Amino acid sequence: MNSELSSLQVQDIGEQGLLVRLQRFCPPEIIGDDAAVLSTEPGQSLVVTTDVLVDGVHFSEITTSGEDAGWRAVAANLSDIAAMGATPLGITVGLGLPGEVAVSWVEQLYQGMTQCLQKYNTPIVGGDIVRSPTTTIAISAFGQVDPSRVIRRNQAKVGDAIVVTGVHGASAAGLQLLLHPDFGQNLSDSDSVCVAPPMPAARLRLSGLALLLSADRTVLIHAHQRPKPRLDVLPILWEILDSDAPHSLGGMDSSDGLADAVVQICRASGVGAVIERTQIPLPKQFNHWLTQEQALEYALYGGEDFELVLSLPKGQAYALVQQLGEGAAIVGKITDGSTVILHDQTEEYPDQVLNLDRGFQHFSH
Amino acid sequence: MNSELSSLQVQDIGEQGLLVRLQRFCPPEIIGDDAAVLSTEPGQSLVVTTDVLVDGVHFSEITTSGEDAGWRAVAANLSDIAAMGATPLGITVGLGLPGEVAVSWVEQLYQGMTQCLQKYNTPIVGGDIVRSPTTTIAISAFGQVDPSRVIRRNQAKVGDAIVVTGVHGASAAGLQLLLHPDFGQNLSDSDSVCVAPPMPAARLRLSGLALLLSADRTVLIHAHQRPKPRLDVLPILWEILDSDAPHSLGGMDSSDGLADAVVQICRASGVGAVIERTQIPLPKQFNHWLTQEQALEYALYGGEDFELVLSLPKGQAYALVQQLGEGAAIVGKITDGSTVILHDQTEEYPDQVLNLDRGFQHFSH
Repeated sequence: MNSELSSLQVQDIGEQGLLVRLQRFCPPEIIGDDAAVLSTEPGQSLVVTTDVLVDGVHFSEITTSGEDAGWRAVAANLSDIAAMGATPLGITVGLGLPGEVAVSWVEQLYQGMTQCLQKYNTPIVGGDIVRSPTTTIAISAFGQVDPSRVIRRNQAKVGDAIVVTGVHGASAAGLQLLLHPDFGQNLSDSDSVCVAPPMPAARLRLSGLALLLSADRTVLIHAHQRPKPRLDVLPILWEILDSDAPHSLGGMDSSDGLADAVVQICRASGVGAVIERTQIPLPKQFNHWLTQEQALEYALYGGEDFELVLSLPKGQAYALVQQLGEGAAIVGKITDGSTVILHDQTEEYPDQVLNLDRGFQHFSH
Repeated sequence: MNSELSSLQVQDIGEQGLLVRLQRFCPPEIIGDDAAVLSTEPGQSLVVTTDVLVDGVHFSEITTSGEDAGWRAVAANLSDIAAMGATPLGITVGLGLPGEVAVSWVEQLYQGMTQCLQKYNTPIVGGDIVRSPTTTIAISAFGQVDPSRVIRRNQAKVGDAIVVTGVHGASAAGLQLLLHPDFGQNLSDSDSVCVAPPMPAARLRLSGLALLLSADRTVLIHAHQRPKPRLDVLPILWEILDSDAPHSLGGMDSSDGLADAVVQICRASGVGAVIERTQIPLPKQFNHWLTQEQALEYALYGGEDFELVLSLPKGQAYALVQQLGEGAAIVGKITDGSTVILHDQTEEYPDQVLNLDRGFQHFSH
């Protein structure tokens, strides 16, 4: 790209000019009408979800490439579709853009969205581009689901096992490494190690600092920049459940952290849970870098791992974990209590009640 | 509402606190999961559309009440659904809010959205509320349509009549009256008359100023604040078309003005059109207030009247206009030309080619 092209701003080509450039990311048949028309399969219900991402709040136009912002925005929405047990049909994209935003950034945003969407055969089916003082990305995603397969938060049953579909904490750790790129660079070979970065004050107490290999650093950052919605879990889940009826099934995704997901499921279902501290699957990159306690803070409260957290009978939970392989685990069970207890079977730590106090309050100071 | 309540800001109660207050506007069964599940009728296609509205660009939080902003945002989206021939199923609402926005403004916004939605039995089925430096409203609307009844822009056929479902220009005139509340107040009884307000320089040449009665002023402002999506047209249209197959049918809504709608339809269909200047239905409030030329500028370029502009065979067009009654009219016909001509059958004005040059370019200076 020559410098003239890369310095082109949205205000230089206007809304119409930008739309023309972005049409290549959309299927041609959907362009030009007041709304898009999508076919659905007979007997399926419609699933809809929406997310708004704001520059400076959810991403930074300066530190986040357009591609990463696009990928992450799509992944978050498709993860919500997966969390309902649904198959995606399409997304719409509403963009608010200051006139000075680089056209190349917007094209990269669409590039990143498309890269993630293509993995799941999902088109961009509509959108709106408007002027705004703040770069804003509003995505709505649509999917379809067999009504008998909808996964809801309020369906956890006492005695169910709690399954997570993969490791937790990698995304939040990756974000910290992005925000603090200098960590460890003055301690040792600047290219090969990184000391543990702090999470926001209340969220991670730093104690011993340890070292992180450069390759591991890359893996964690990638986990943050390119999270994968776990749509791949669903066919495996249906195969196990369909062959083994009747069953209970509850769940959601872990976009706001593993602790949040378990607490939300229990609250909606009117049940409690015990989570085994040592069973929570952690990224192996944490091993020689973070203390056990630090690692657990990332896993429980970090968020944006976009795994599924499911409650289902023990036998089926075991089969699911076996088939999903690495990272998937049974982390605890649903109880008839009213709290979510973090338990340590090694008895090194006392029982701890998990709640949502550590979650984000978007408007708090 | 006491002053303590009305001065409450979003940052005082946080995202969760705001969500709790807004839940009363949503059906209880949709709250709490990662996405909403909606039933669709068998054999129907899904229609989706999205709009982003930004404070200071599309509305002003200071001059627009929350209720009006909410009504208008919903009306624009439901109009897109109507323009596709579809029936609405639900909307999602994504909100970006500065911490200092009054909670009461946000509640009024939802009140206004709900007032408009209730007229069309349409629920709010999901949403997202995030912090943002700029108040932003992103709405996606979903509908369902019999695939054989989809109304597309590219289906206008040579010889078709062009129907508009109501008067044009009222909304833009109402906006000007809101922006310039003092017009005419120093000329006469301040409560009873109003002189013609200017549209943005290039859009309306002012010549003779005339007077507007207070009651008429109210009607025009109401047309701007509370536009009605023409979903009511569809059952009438289907009855006429179904009893009289085969038929051609093209169309869209007039959200960006009547001229824009006709040009867009012709461009998409590869046809031309002749519009009869004297056949364009104008608000009767324009009669003793605006010159014929001013009135036509509002009607052609004002926008946001949210009427439907349809092309269909002459006999059916006539039947539709008869049944819709006041305001509906045949304004012209589709030709095998390549331009849209504004023609004057009284021969007072020469033919004029309509194009989109006068339309908005959102990012232009």
